[in-house]
Amino acid sequence: MYKQIKLRDHHIISGKDALDIFKTLFESSDYKDRAIFLLMDDNTNHHCLPLLRSYLAKKAAPPGIIIPCGEEHKNLHSCERLWNFLQKHQADRNAVLVNLGGGVITDIGGFAASTYKRGISFINIPTTLMGMIDAAIGGKTAVNLQKTKNQIGTFAQPDSVYIYPGFLNTLPKKELESGYAEILKHALIADKNLWEVLKLKAIENINTLEDLINYAVLIKAEIVEQDPYEKNIRKTLNFGHTFGHAFESLAIQHDNPITHGKAIAAGMICESYLSYAINQLDKTELSDIQKTIEKTFSLPGIKTSDINSMTNYMYNDKKNQKGKINCSLIAEPGKAKYDQLIPEELINEALNYYIDRMPKTGF
Amino acid sequence: MYKQIKLRDHHIISGKDALDIFKTLFESSDYKDRAIFLLMDDNTNHHCLPLLRSYLAKKAAPPGIIIPCGEEHKNLHSCERLWNFLQKHQADRNAVLVNLGGGVITDIGGFAASTYKRGISFINIPTTLMGMIDAAIGGKTAVNLQKTKNQIGTFAQPDSVYIYPGFLNTLPKKELESGYAEILKHALIADKNLWEVLKLKAIENINTLEDLINYAVLIKAEIVEQDPYEKNIRKTLNFGHTFGHAFESLAIQHDNPITHGKAIAAGMICESYLSYAINQLDKTELSDIQKTIEKTFSLPGIKTSDINSMTNYMYNDKKNQKGKINCSLIAEPGKAKYDQLIPEELINEALNYYIDRMPKTGF
Repeated sequence: MYKQIKLRDHHIISGKDALDIFKTLFESSDYKDRAIFLLMDDNTNHHCLPLLRSYLAKKAAPPGIIIPCGEEHKNLHSCERLWNFLQKHQADRNAVLVNLGGGVITDIGGFAASTYKRGISFINIPTTLMGMIDAAIGGKTAVNLQKTKNQIGTFAQPDSVYIYPGFLNTLPKKELESGYAEILKHALIADKNLWEVLKLKAIENINTLEDLINYAVLIKAEIVEQDPYEKNIRKTLNFGHTFGHAFESLAIQHDNPITHGKAIAAGMICESYLSYAINQLDKTELSDIQKTIEKTFSLPGIKTSDINSMTNYMYNDKKNQKGKINCSLIAEPGKAKYDQLIPEELINEALNYYIDRMPKTGF
Repeated sequence: MYKQIKLRDHHIISGKDALDIFKTLFESSDYKDRAIFLLMDDNTNHHCLPLLRSYLAKKAAPPGIIIPCGEEHKNLHSCERLWNFLQKHQADRNAVLVNLGGGVITDIGGFAASTYKRGISFINIPTTLMGMIDAAIGGKTAVNLQKTKNQIGTFAQPDSVYIYPGFLNTLPKKELESGYAEILKHALIADKNLWEVLKLKAIENINTLEDLINYAVLIKAEIVEQDPYEKNIRKTLNFGHTFGHAFESLAIQHDNPITHGKAIAAGMICESYLSYAINQLDKTELSDIQKTIEKTFSLPGIKTSDINSMTNYMYNDKKNQKGKINCSLIAEPGKAKYDQLIPEELINEALNYYIDRMPKTGF
């Protein structure tokens, strides 16, 4: 009733019984005497904590801290609140932080835990599809700096990750769509067969998703295990993210944040265009990718006047080398190429391609 | 004319020619195309940068940022300024931050570099005795949280450390005394012969110090190399620091900061008393330690009414386990014992011992 992926220094438990396994963790000799703290957002406090609490019988009410929902709170201020909370409760080096939430919560919680007293343990319980497929696994933690995404962070693995798909029932459809972008991405970079399946379907219900989650988690876990510090193959997971982060930053700048998934979906269209322009991605495949994405996502519109801002955000991307914008692209569905340095003219061309084809509704 | 200590993943260059070696680094293929940024404080900008700049001929004027002097600026606000500075200059993952200063600068710079874009390279050029002997080597980075020392940080090794004793000529005697506390500590925990030498002398001049620096750096480097993440023997380096940090925090609370060295000197007296009380440190040795410390340091006075604050600071120390205050003590000069859990009565007894014998001048 659950699937366990054992990795070098932690493991991922996924399935209907994931929280039963979580419960046994705190009865084990390694954990039973350690102080637990909970990080949540408003939503997970309301919708997920009651269920989780029933699995923490012996640790009846661990102290918790709630961060307001939304990407705009993934910042140093939230970290500082969390650090002060831990300090106030005299959390020592053996303390364990349980992050209950989507990518914002696991990113902030992971960063704060990995730097509090130079590093305490943390456990991720992702509650969104995006979190389950991507953010909660792989050990990248981060907060945004001003309006630039994930500028400050660490590589730090959680002790373990518990993926309980039942939490997806608490989410609006928008959030499911958001995580679905990463499933599409995982297929496009590493699994042609999965891509062929996804081309034919759209999100239907949670039951369909459960299998896809296991599939997508395994793709990511295998890539991260080979290259935890993103020296080579892990870079392929950035497909869609160079442009995607710029879409996300632009949306924040316009005070109208969009989901990470929607941004990545838009980013994948631009970067598929680049893959077509420089990596011989077939034109039919470019068109298939675009149609498959449009089937699920209503994409953000941008204007020609936004190109400058978008390019500036991309010039500040962490992956860049020697001032050149660096993308991970695909050669064909299921095969990715990393460290593709893109000249500015092509960046503009890809953005114009996007603008010409996309709705002009603005953010 | 210089001494090189090669460690697992970085090296330490110490001596009159250290900056000549530093110069060759930026001509090497690994570094010559990478952007350099400089972190300084007001003092090192004024007194040390001119010399350093003459060694950076090919990188004539790397962008620099200046943080005001003093422990009270070792906080998240300074980090945020540094992160924003790096972002503004579009520092990429290949950028190198050169930290030119004492422990405050190398601690902040190391932390900010190790978390900017999840980690860029940094190089430490310590300019104080404390920095040379202790802070700049070993890979502990940190900032203070509110008034508690080093609560937020990482383990992150600099690419290399350049120790040029000539910088000590720019310092007031107070700063030399401060680093001298760590030399005494290194002798007390690991080198009986060095201790016998130190008992007989006081700080005379920079030339005497040069040999002591090489000695003390080697002691620390060997300990850290064996145990970089402080799981066992590295803990011995905390001798004097449990009480020392509380002295330091109390001084900040009284808005009258003291040097780290003075705080550690006071801490070593308290913890030598504990070593006497529970580890059979000989009473004559306790007295020798006290006299040797008093010969160099005018120690901070505290009052009985401060005991409560001091104890609270200690209960928030990173080393604690299960709510018990954890000290590294000595059994005899040259031999340390770590993970000594101390009951609160003994903490009070040690503080009263200190109060009874020390001047009551206040901070």
